[in-house]
Parts: sequence; structure tokens; C-alpha cells
Amino acid sequence: MNEAIDLTREECERLLRSGVGGRVALCSPNGPYIVPVNHSVVDDAIIIRTSPYSVLGTYGRDTMLAFEVDQFDHERQRGWSVVARGRAEVVVKPAELDHIRETWEPRPWAAGARSLHLRVRWTELSGRKIGSGWDLAAALPVHRSM
Amino acid sequence: MNEAIDLTREECERLLRSGVGGRVALCSPNGPYIVPVNHSVVDDAIIIRTSPYSVLGTYGRDTMLAFEVDQFDHERQRGWSVVARGRAEVVVKPAELDHIRETWEPRPWAAGARSLHLRVRWTELSGRKIGSGWDLAAALPVHRSM
Repeated sequence: MNEAIDLTREECERLLRSGVGGRVALCSPNGPYIVPVNHSVVDDAIIIRTSPYSVLGTYGRDTMLAFEVDQFDHERQRGWSVVARGRAEVVVKPAELDHIRETWEPRPWAAGARSLHLRVRWTELSGRKIGSGWDLAAALPVHRSM
Repeated sequence: MNEAIDLTREECERLLRSGVGGRVALCSPNGPYIVPVNHSVVDDAIIIRTSPYSVLGTYGRDTMLAFEVDQFDHERQRGWSVVARGRAEVVVKPAELDHIRETWEPRPWAAGARSLHLRVRWTELSGRKIGSGWDLAAALPVHRSM
């Protein structure tokens, strides 16, 4: 059995910034939801595009969210996971939206109108890995230049 | 851009039962958390082992949980995700614990005492896929006999 090892803050940030998708958790009056999303990281905030009428758009604004990225190698029982938590706010200022679009606009794979930009400035960031002998950066599904 | 397509109930169940790990979301007084976990499916319930002192063990009992499994091919921008939601209860009866152990005991990869068995009988189950031309079952990281 493998010991889970805490990732450093730098490793967590690198993995968060290198990915293009993860899962966001939110609390609704009817309990928690998990929604898979594409994301980007602009400055020190996670940016997610969604529809104003979605579960995320309805219950995921002006409240705490948790966002997770991970990768698991089931055959070798190894992997890593990074979780960021912070308060989500809707980006409304045109200058801020322009900055996001110019820096790194999130690119959802799925069709659909996603006019709402949620910004999560993380106040908690932690990660763990299980199993050794692999390079976290090389294991990323997509290599993003930073 | 790809249209997201709803999975049938049968596809959702098959993917849920075929996996060995996912992510559970819970609501705490301090907002939502996401925790990656190994899981199993016994009868019509998700079984997760955790420590009584973890965030999940503290805030994830006798309350609604959301559990998600997915697989994404970032290069080809395709993937699927299944989310199950239901009320979590701690399994305490010895006969029920025996039944779980005999049927399919969850096998956490990470070391650590996980004496608490949480059971989530899902009351909501839904899934979506993006992108076509792949066999959902063949794409599973681990093939479990059912």
C-alpha cells in the first residue's frame, strides 16, 4: 500500500495551471453537485465559463466553490490530485473580461452558450500524490506553455 | 464544437459499476469539498471507505453526496462523465459489512486507516458524453467483471 504524499504549493499551482479541465463542486439547497468543466488560470484565479441558467450558474456564484484536477493511472495504482477552494464571483467588468480573453480564455469542448465567466481566486490549495516513479509534468494529458 | 449527448441510465450504471475510483463532493459549514476516492458498487449503492476523522467522515454522513466518475481524452477533446447523487449513511450492521466485503470491498490505493464504510444509494444518476467514435466500455481504464 502506498503512502499519500503532500504536493508542495508550487507543484499544486503548476498542475492547476497546466490543465484544461477539472471538476467543480458547489453546494445547493438540495446538497452538493459536481460538474466537469474546462477551465483556465488567469493571474491567480481559476476561470470557468458556464450558462447563467445551469446549476453552476445558479448556485455557484458569490459562494465558496471547490475545484479539482487529477490524473490516475489505474493499472499502476498511482496518481495525483489537486484541490483549490475559494469564493466564486461573476466577472462583469469589460476590462477584466478582455484581460481574460487576451490571456487565456477557457475553451469548453461542449457546444452551448456560456456567457457567464466565474472567477475563483483560490484561498486554499492542496494536493497529494500516490505512487512514485513518474514525472508529474510529463504525465499531464496536455502540455500547456505557461 | 461537439454536442454533449446524454447517456442512458444503463450506460451510466455500467460506467459507475466498472470503475474503481472517482470523486465525492460534500457540503460542509465552510462550503463544498471534493475528495478523490476509490469506490465500489454493491447492489445499488456506491461504497466508499474513509476515516471517521476526515472531512468526508465528518461532514459526509447522513447527508446528500455527489459522486462522479469520468474519463477525458484531452488530445481529442472527447470524454464522458457520470454523476450519482444520494444520501450517505454509515454502514454499521455486521451482516451488511460482511456482504460488502464478500461482494466487492473498496480497495483504497493510499495507506491509512479507513474504518468507516459510507453507502450512497443513488437517487439521481445522469451522464453525458462529448465526442463520438469510441467505445465507452473499451475506454475504461480498468475492466472489471460484473
